[in-house]
Amino acid sequence: MIRVGIVGYGNIGKGVLSAIRESEDCEAVALFTRRNPEHLEDLPPNIKAVSFSEIERYKGKVDVLILCGGSKNDLPHQGPQIAEMFSIIDSFDTHAAIPEYLSKVNEAAKKGGSTAIISSGWDPGLFSMMRLISQSVLPNGLTYTFWGRGVSQGHSDAIRTIDGVEHGVQYTVPMDSAVEAVRLGINPELAPGEKHKRVCYVAPKEGADLDKIAAEIKNMPNYFADYDTTVNFVPIEELAEKHSKMPHGGRVIHSGATALGRNKQLIEFSLNLDSNPEFTGSIMVAFARAAARMSRDGKSGGFTPFDIPIYYLSPRKREDLIKDLL
Amino acid sequence: MIRVGIVGYGNIGKGVLSAIRESEDCEAVALFTRRNPEHLEDLPPNIKAVSFSEIERYKGKVDVLILCGGSKNDLPHQGPQIAEMFSIIDSFDTHAAIPEYLSKVNEAAKKGGSTAIISSGWDPGLFSMMRLISQSVLPNGLTYTFWGRGVSQGHSDAIRTIDGVEHGVQYTVPMDSAVEAVRLGINPELAPGEKHKRVCYVAPKEGADLDKIAAEIKNMPNYFADYDTTVNFVPIEELAEKHSKMPHGGRVIHSGATALGRNKQLIEFSLNLDSNPEFTGSIMVAFARAAARMSRDGKSGGFTPFDIPIYYLSPRKREDLIKDLL
Repeated sequence: MIRVGIVGYGNIGKGVLSAIRESEDCEAVALFTRRNPEHLEDLPPNIKAVSFSEIERYKGKVDVLILCGGSKNDLPHQGPQIAEMFSIIDSFDTHAAIPEYLSKVNEAAKKGGSTAIISSGWDPGLFSMMRLISQSVLPNGLTYTFWGRGVSQGHSDAIRTIDGVEHGVQYTVPMDSAVEAVRLGINPELAPGEKHKRVCYVAPKEGADLDKIAAEIKNMPNYFADYDTTVNFVPIEELAEKHSKMPHGGRVIHSGATALGRNKQLIEFSLNLDSNPEFTGSIMVAFARAAARMSRDGKSGGFTPFDIPIYYLSPRKREDLIKDLL
Repeated sequence: MIRVGIVGYGNIGKGVLSAIRESEDCEAVALFTRRNPEHLEDLPPNIKAVSFSEIERYKGKVDVLILCGGSKNDLPHQGPQIAEMFSIIDSFDTHAAIPEYLSKVNEAAKKGGSTAIISSGWDPGLFSMMRLISQSVLPNGLTYTFWGRGVSQGHSDAIRTIDGVEHGVQYTVPMDSAVEAVRLGINPELAPGEKHKRVCYVAPKEGADLDKIAAEIKNMPNYFADYDTTVNFVPIEELAEKHSKMPHGGRVIHSGATALGRNKQLIEFSLNLDSNPEFTGSIMVAFARAAARMSRDGKSGGFTPFDIPIYYLSPRKREDLIKDLL
């Protein structure tokens, strides 16, 4: 059994717990939180909630820690700090900051003799692996990534900062026309607003100026201004009832060619997810298994999904995988 | 530059040559053949055709050999024999014989200090990797593989053995209804004949009994008897004109769930290929790159696509891949 510790109990932490329940070779040993551990709701009875300040006492008692904090405020300091004591896994997703973060985590893991695998969700993570494999196989080609239909946390948060908004949820929706153009192999140039549109569901506060809210959303730079944005006003009850799930998905399409462009070759990888955090948690558990095993094999340092022989992800023996799945 | 040798000059060998032309870091050094090397047609001027019997003289002159022979008659003896002298890559695809073949290749490669990667096409190969990744992430789920629409060499050959058949081509076609049922996440049980149908184009010999040919095809055990099979008779000229390309494709769909079955999660990987042998050749070149690099890193033995950190497949530096694709 691989003894797993979880750091953070937000959506991802809950998704990880759910995924561990589906994994025959992993058990959740402790959940570390900066909140009062006695007041965590919904925690299954067999898992111990522990104050984050006591994490060091668990050295030797867990094989790998799954870090479920945010990439902006939690991971930049938590990752290197914890990697010095434990093997870790995270879904660090600030693309531009990955090289610097990896370098710090690598240094800490080397120092502590642990194994740290970063950015192991679906993007970055599985989608990144598909981009790398596709471009390696068909160097003469273009890779397109589409996200959605799914809830974007960042865009939903942006809506909620607007005056007069009680609550809001934003769906990123890929444009069918763009996906079809890419599948035709014509390698179109697509501006961000030609790839995705944005659909918002907003519960306004009583007496709020709806036109003003809609205009503020649609004109918000970076988030909405460059996109076809629809704003739907709905009662708060409807928002809770119909838009509190976290579905998501997306696709990576690599449109390549062989024989000097004569023959088109298309590689497509897609996800259709009822629950984004539970799927992310499932990927993280698979990579946590890899981290625990690499650690046992003495491979210390900082790694990414590009660095892991994929048989490490499975609970099954290598020879069985080769026999049954190759 | 990675110096590549090619063994065999059939469809796959030609596909490999085409793929090497698209790869900035690989050059084809020699093509080994058991035919008279002076009589190879279509060979680009810069590649030397060499008799297979002289292969040993190329030790130290090529970094990796790409074996393009058949899995039935060529690879079982060629693989172990050549792996003792060179790093190799192949697309060995007799699923049931993979463990035994890998064991022999591994032994030879260990003895010779070379790196051998087997079964590196798209199935086995990329499809196998997707099955492994999907099942590792969502252990609670079922994986379905569909092939086509595409030409099956084995089934086309089977048609050609029938009396009165001048030439024949068979397309394996996935059933849309089955693909849709799988995508719905209802995990249907599908017999082989419910997943694929078979469409044949046959040019009969003069005076042949068409009804008899059609009946013989449709009743052929293993190949056609269990499938919805259509036989179209066409003139030999039409067969050559419309059915001599080798398109193919297929999809691996893993239909899983989280939260004890409450939330459905779908992972799908698909290929749509104008030229099956050129795409297979492209994958083999990427894995040949991995073999050459692993050999330089001193990793000798027999490997599969499950064993390779995927950054080895790319000609780009690891840090650039992490920066640009993760």
